[in-house]
Amino acid sequence: MADQIITLTTDFGTASPFVGAMKGVILSINPAARVIDLSHEIPPFSIRHAAFFLAEALPYFPPGTLHVIVVDPGVGTDRAIFHVSAAGQRLLVPDNGCWTLLAEGHSRPLHVIRLAERRFWRPIVSATFHGRDIFAPVAAYLSLGINPAELGPAVTEWKKLTWPAPARHADNITGEVIFVDHFGNMITNISGACLTAAPAQARVTIGARTEARRVRAYGDAPVGTLVALVSSNGLLEVAEVQGNASRRLSLGLGAPVRVDWKK
Amino acid sequence: MADQIITLTTDFGTASPFVGAMKGVILSINPAARVIDLSHEIPPFSIRHAAFFLAEALPYFPPGTLHVIVVDPGVGTDRAIFHVSAAGQRLLVPDNGCWTLLAEGHSRPLHVIRLAERRFWRPIVSATFHGRDIFAPVAAYLSLGINPAELGPAVTEWKKLTWPAPARHADNITGEVIFVDHFGNMITNISGACLTAAPAQARVTIGARTEARRVRAYGDAPVGTLVALVSSNGLLEVAEVQGNASRRLSLGLGAPVRVDWKK
Amino acid sequence: MADQIITLTTDFGTASPFVGAMKGVILSINPAARVIDLSHEIPPFSIRHAAFFLAEALPYFPPGTLHVIVVDPGVGTDRAIFHVSAAGQRLLVPDNGCWTLLAEGHSRPLHVIRLAERRFWRPIVSATFHGRDIFAPVAAYLSLGINPAELGPAVTEWKKLTWPAPARHADNITGEVIFVDHFGNMITNISGACLTAAPAQARVTIGARTEARRVRAYGDAPVGTLVALVSSNGLLEVAEVQGNASRRLSLGLGAPVRVDWKK
Repeated sequence: MADQIITLTTDFGTASPFVGAMKGVILSINPAARVIDLSHEIPPFSIRHAAFFLAEALPYFPPGTLHVIVVDPGVGTDRAIFHVSAAGQRLLVPDNGCWTLLAEGHSRPLHVIRLAERRFWRPIVSATFHGRDIFAPVAAYLSLGINPAELGPAVTEWKKLTWPAPARHADNITGEVIFVDHFGNMITNISGACLTAAPAQARVTIGARTEARRVRAYGDAPVGTLVALVSSNGLLEVAEVQGNASRRLSLGLGAPVRVDWKK
Repeated sequence: MADQIITLTTDFGTASPFVGAMKGVILSINPAARVIDLSHEIPPFSIRHAAFFLAEALPYFPPGTLHVIVVDPGVGTDRAIFHVSAAGQRLLVPDNGCWTLLAEGHSRPLHVIRLAERRFWRPIVSATFHGRDIFAPVAAYLSLGINPAELGPAVTEWKKLTWPAPARHADNITGEVIFVDHFGNMITNISGACLTAAPAQARVTIGARTEARRVRAYGDAPVGTLVALVSSNGLLEVAEVQGNASRRLSLGLGAPVRVDWKK
Repeated sequence: MADQIITLTTDFGTASPFVGAMKGVILSINPAARVIDLSHEIPPFSIRHAAFFLAEALPYFPPGTLHVIVVDPGVGTDRAIFHVSAAGQRLLVPDNGCWTLLAEGHSRPLHVIRLAERRFWRPIVSATFHGRDIFAPVAAYLSLGINPAELGPAVTEWKKLTWPAPARHADNITGEVIFVDHFGNMITNISGACLTAAPAQARVTIGARTEARRVRAYGDAPVGTLVALVSSNGLLEVAEVQGNASRRLSLGLGAPVRVDWKK
């Protein structure tokens, strides 16, 4: 256990000393911990970005890997911090719903503990940096093998993130963009299966009436083409071949997307 | 010793090959070294940013951890490179004062060695990249257990970074912003104790006359409120709740901050 | 072998979940792998940036280190993925030429295998994310000690990146900028030896007719001076002392550079 992996996901930014402080606290308690950066560039306070991020990245880790997530606009208030067992992974997360999308997709048992035992925290807890004062030391002690049950009481209520659902109609499906990646590719809440099952004449439109060409891979259309394809997570995605679709269309989170079956 | 931690802090940027080259040099000399990124996004040439960064992040690491800092506008000139023992940590740093703020806050003995023994450097030393040619190999040899005294002579003089001090008057304290973090939170040189000890009617102003509301935690005021609180390092901080105070006020390093005790 | 180093270089961006997914896949197959980030900020789809990056960073790693490079605009098409032995290093790369600059500079034997054995891939391969579905699992299996010959057939043809060559004339050399780093320093395709061998009166100009002052190190001229010097890779570089030459001159990749020998 002593060389257990601890992943870090924060909105602290890569220029900030806060990530380093967390790594220092972890290594001071368990010098053999293997700290792995997932991202420190979650947009500030963006619980939705974090939710999608966690659902996309965490399931690929070995079962039982410990993930620390500090996207935490409620720091210092009475919002709880949880140890969550979900999707086969273990998370330390603020109670702000950022982890519920990850859990939804998996049938594994869900177990949530509220951090309450201050003996695993730093002696003085600031009102602005629980990443250093609570998340980091608790993660380090967990990596040394303490039982999560020692951290505090089990709870059965928590904040859930409501996620927009697509609407299915007789001859179309309407949905919206739920994530924009670094390339400007826009991932929607519409299942990619809708696209692959759609008849040849079905059309994908984004925004007011911009049509995207249906392809299997980015490289199947010339550079600059706006394309619709199945994303690596199985959702419908709109992209520009070797370009930035989001910037080109000035569209982002919440932009309407529609698959029309009739001509 | 062979698996010793080496942290890296540079202003090279995350897109640059220079960080990779340093990691390669370190691992070629000591394949078991555990290289940990603190930041590669220190603003270019910003010794002040680096100074604050080091003071905030390094003290949390296990005693004796080796930290390599390459924010080095003087590279290739006759500025010295030091091995510094300070604040319980070990640093390889250019002689530009970036480490003196860290050392000031700690009473531990200070020991400074000037790197002079070229046998621990790469055979050919470029005029533009001492990170690869001097810092990285010396760090790797240190992680293998060589005695720092082998690196060169002890010295007793070095550049110090002058840091602005707040001014205390009968019924107010005036200071300035000394660090702006990724969230746009502005950390000042005024002790947070001034805030907690201040009477209820005391007011915090930043810039010409913008008042910030005194709170304990960010979440204690509605989104968008400009707040003053005690930062995680004990200094007075001005922030916008779930916003970017620096951008909103168009204020940054050096902006005046004032705590008034009278009504 | 079980704790072998795997470096990652991608254009995924540091905010994206894709890097985390790759790390998860690697660690699920070989929990002892040591994953080292080189960069995830290669500009999107920029094979040239990647080529320069790899040539600058990879040669410093211990011989036989495994490097995974995912800058891959052709993902999902029939472009091949290669295991390349070159420059003493091992690479997993798309067949887009990003690695040929690295190989050119070294006389070591070159050996290229085309990935074909799907038993080392994830069972379902998406059309948009081969980093997760092919590169990551293959890297993990390689780190466990499988023989690269098991991955697929050896090949002798691949895409090469054409790189501009400087032109030598009787009394001048003309070339161009081939890389701009984080500081705005512009690295050219002209050998630095041209600079050091040039007579005292030789002049370096960039763009239409901006002259850069010849120095040995950045710090040899006052802040704000435009200077020409030998870069850490031996090429001629144009920089602004503690400034950003590229931004100041509004020049970047392809900008003409000239060394004139006559007065």
